[in-house]
Amino acid sequence: MTYTLVLLRHGESEWNAKNLFTGWVDAKLSAAGEDEARRGGRLLAEADLLPDVVHTSLLRRAINTAELALSEAARSWIPVKRSWRLNERHYGALQGKDKAQTLAEFGEEQFMTWRRSYDTPPPPIEPGSEFSQDGDPRYRALAPEVNPSAECLKDVLERMLPYWYDGIVPDLRAGRTVLVAAHGNSLRALVKHLDGVGDDAIVGLNIPTGMPLRYELDERTLKPVVAGGEYLDPETAAKAAAAVAAQGKK
Amino acid sequence: MTYTLVLLRHGESEWNAKNLFTGWVDAKLSAAGEDEARRGGRLLAEADLLPDVVHTSLLRRAINTAELALSEAARSWIPVKRSWRLNERHYGALQGKDKAQTLAEFGEEQFMTWRRSYDTPPPPIEPGSEFSQDGDPRYRALAPEVNPSAECLKDVLERMLPYWYDGIVPDLRAGRTVLVAAHGNSLRALVKHLDGVGDDAIVGLNIPTGMPLRYELDERTLKPVVAGGEYLDPETAAKAAAAVAAQGKK
Repeated sequence: MTYTLVLLRHGESEWNAKNLFTGWVDAKLSAAGEDEARRGGRLLAEADLLPDVVHTSLLRRAINTAELALSEAARSWIPVKRSWRLNERHYGALQGKDKAQTLAEFGEEQFMTWRRSYDTPPPPIEPGSEFSQDGDPRYRALAPEVNPSAECLKDVLERMLPYWYDGIVPDLRAGRTVLVAAHGNSLRALVKHLDGVGDDAIVGLNIPTGMPLRYELDERTLKPVVAGGEYLDPETAAKAAAAVAAQGKK
Repeated sequence: MTYTLVLLRHGESEWNAKNLFTGWVDAKLSAAGEDEARRGGRLLAEADLLPDVVHTSLLRRAINTAELALSEAARSWIPVKRSWRLNERHYGALQGKDKAQTLAEFGEEQFMTWRRSYDTPPPPIEPGSEFSQDGDPRYRALAPEVNPSAECLKDVLERMLPYWYDGIVPDLRAGRTVLVAAHGNSLRALVKHLDGVGDDAIVGLNIPTGMPLRYELDERTLKPVVAGGEYLDPETAAKAAAAVAAQGKK
């Protein structure tokens, strides 16, 4: 027996479309992003891969992706659970900045370090900045020492894992097909954990948006039966991943 | 101190638009119904009446109403809880039938008894009927004796109340502003309970669609401080309630 886990990265947001660093800023899906979410839902329905429970971040682009995909698959009624631990990486002082401008201003080496380094966070966001989560009621109950001001992927992995173990694994153990609707970096962190991807190799791993990624997990080890999982639409997924890798270079 | 409860009846569904008895059939919102849900969300935001948690039925027209309204109020991130106990009244053998045809076929007296009698259910739906919930995975875990084949409003009240006490009241007691997104009859049942409406008087009580109805509840008695609650947009709500009362007579 295996457990079935489906990862779904949200579709294009209005800030992705504008080429801005988003992080914890609560940007909406663009119309194209909504279409991606619906397409993801149709792929789930066509594969008869019907989630029994959905886990999302606290950010609307992941939440609305889940809602649109599940509606398309006629599974709006399943239980919903949310956690800040599935949020996108906090981009610190880069939040709200244009990616191409940042690249021009700081040069490719610094830019790629901030975007892709496993363990170097960007500079922290100023308290009270327009693009910080200060005063946002959804994070009010967080202890200050876990409420981030900037994160590298290593930080994301560390804060995501407790939710994997305590929020998601129990649903898998109960035999439920689990959908996780989240973000480029929180999903990369989860994939890194599941597939045992090295700190260097994870830099080159891109997860396309709106493409359900299915993992069958061994019931004893909770590790993938097929490394890297399987995209429901592998051909389109490969093209989309290449496009993500090129992002910011326009 | 009082507790704040907001009731929201889903907007027009595709089956409302076609004038069919819906009940537990999982009809989608119409485009007009989606607009009603968004308007409801804007009213919440304008009144600064921001839910901390939402409870929905298992039917997509209530679920999607909650999603659209909360998105409009930038509250998509709040916890979501669902129960079959908030579902619409099960309309039995009438599910899928045209309201005007049913009126013509059975006469006004029988028609109004089925629609509005407090304690006379319509005829039960045939097992395996196209419009029954047989085989629907969302009800698979229900014991057969609580899985309805037809309900009167009294039946709805009785199956709704356990969820009120065990699902909703604890959230109110925790000081949360609670949104309940549900249906004409599950909300009438709740209003009957809260306001102590008599079995005869409840027949004439109509709840308009897409209009947030706010109750402040006494912290000791859990009864409304203002009987009947307050609509955020009382003028439009009165007109809409009159339209609901006239339904089926076209």
